[in-house]
Amino acid sequence: CPRPSPPTSPSSATATAPPSAPWTCAAARPAPRIDFMLQSSLHCKVPNGAIDITSLFINLNASTDAPHFVMEFIQGSPTSMVVLLDLLPRKDLALHPEYIEKYYGNTEADKQRKIIEELPQARPYLSPSLFVRSAFSPTAVFFTIDCGQGGESVLEEIVHGHLASVVKGLLQIWLGTCAGDTSEVDEGEREIMVKRDRTVRSKSIEVDLTANLPRMFGPDVSGRVIAEIRKAFGVEEA
Amino acid sequence: CPRPSPPTSPSSATATAPPSAPWTCAAARPAPRIDFMLQSSLHCKVPNGAIDITSLFINLNASTDAPHFVMEFIQGSPTSMVVLLDLLPRKDLALHPEYIEKYYGNTEADKQRKIIEELPQARPYLSPSLFVRSAFSPTAVFFTIDCGQGGESVLEEIVHGHLASVVKGLLQIWLGTCAGDTSEVDEGEREIMVKRDRTVRSKSIEVDLTANLPRMFGPDVSGRVIAEIRKAFGVEEA
Repeated sequence: CPRPSPPTSPSSATATAPPSAPWTCAAARPAPRIDFMLQSSLHCKVPNGAIDITSLFINLNASTDAPHFVMEFIQGSPTSMVVLLDLLPRKDLALHPEYIEKYYGNTEADKQRKIIEELPQARPYLSPSLFVRSAFSPTAVFFTIDCGQGGESVLEEIVHGHLASVVKGLLQIWLGTCAGDTSEVDEGEREIMVKRDRTVRSKSIEVDLTANLPRMFGPDVSGRVIAEIRKAFGVEEA
Repeated sequence: CPRPSPPTSPSSATATAPPSAPWTCAAARPAPRIDFMLQSSLHCKVPNGAIDITSLFINLNASTDAPHFVMEFIQGSPTSMVVLLDLLPRKDLALHPEYIEKYYGNTEADKQRKIIEELPQARPYLSPSLFVRSAFSPTAVFFTIDCGQGGESVLEEIVHGHLASVVKGLLQIWLGTCAGDTSEVDEGEREIMVKRDRTVRSKSIEVDLTANLPRMFGPDVSGRVIAEIRKAFGVEEA
């Protein structure tokens, strides 16, 4: 789900982006458990307006099996947006109920999801990709918020109110329980987890970037951006 | 999700139930890949009416990793019901995109889900159990169908029309692609799958039967029924 900053819109590049790359892929490690962060904002003019996509993906390394942090807002009009927030699982949940309990049950992550669910403007968003549907957690905040005609200010209020509160709530859970996780990962489990992480990143690029970027920014720019993201993700093509 | 036939309501026991047990747990194997089938109908009087739960669970054995078949209808009033239909996955989908492709993508199972989704009376049903949410496939038909006051005949029409068609469609996919699957399972993968199957069955009993049966039929009857189901499921308590 992470997307690169818009190669054709330098104005929307993030403040922390190095001058050589319009997207942010910070190798700096704020904590030993963090592998990398990808932060991006994408702006694309379309015939009847613009699409703005803001993403933050914080990836933990293989010293822990705690979930990654994923945040994405896709705004296709001034009155509606798709929201995606999750603590992205790194283990097979049906095989590991204790993992569900630890990261999603005990943390009460579902309470955050319910705050958005209860908004009259929100309805569940179902990804067209069966893989994306399978990769997210059972408490993923996955909604379309549609405020209808003339609802610009209502959307602004929701973003600054409910949505900001939920993002902070989930980030707090992630910082406390995931980034700060100190449990050890068994060697055999680590091998499966590393493969799983790589599969999820690789499929994300395929269903998200490869499928969408070329028609937004043309094949050349998209090709270069995707190649760099692949390197950062450690999923380079043979 | 499978539930036993109602120990207190012999009239609603299924026709194929042996006299010694009010629920059906057929050891007869219609095909070498089928491990067992659990078919049940549960009827429970409540202060303002009755709850009727009809379930069919067809479990494949460990010679294949193809999905199990799950069907459940929970009718709490003459005008509404919860529908659950799925080809229950037996592998970690995020680690195995080819499994998603084979059983859910290529079979176009999502088209069946969409038939129910498009009904104006249907809205997505989200299980309160995070485990149940995690165990089902990305094309699971998981909806509440609510036809509102006076909607008895509308519900009947939906059940005999759209719903019957979707059940037949999914069963046809399952019979062709899952029950008829001839691919071999790798020894290492089989071990994980057997453990996964057992975890899913064990958790299903916990969140579904242990949590609900005692307050419907009392602790004694429920205890005996659950003990038998545990035996059939191969998840007896220590």
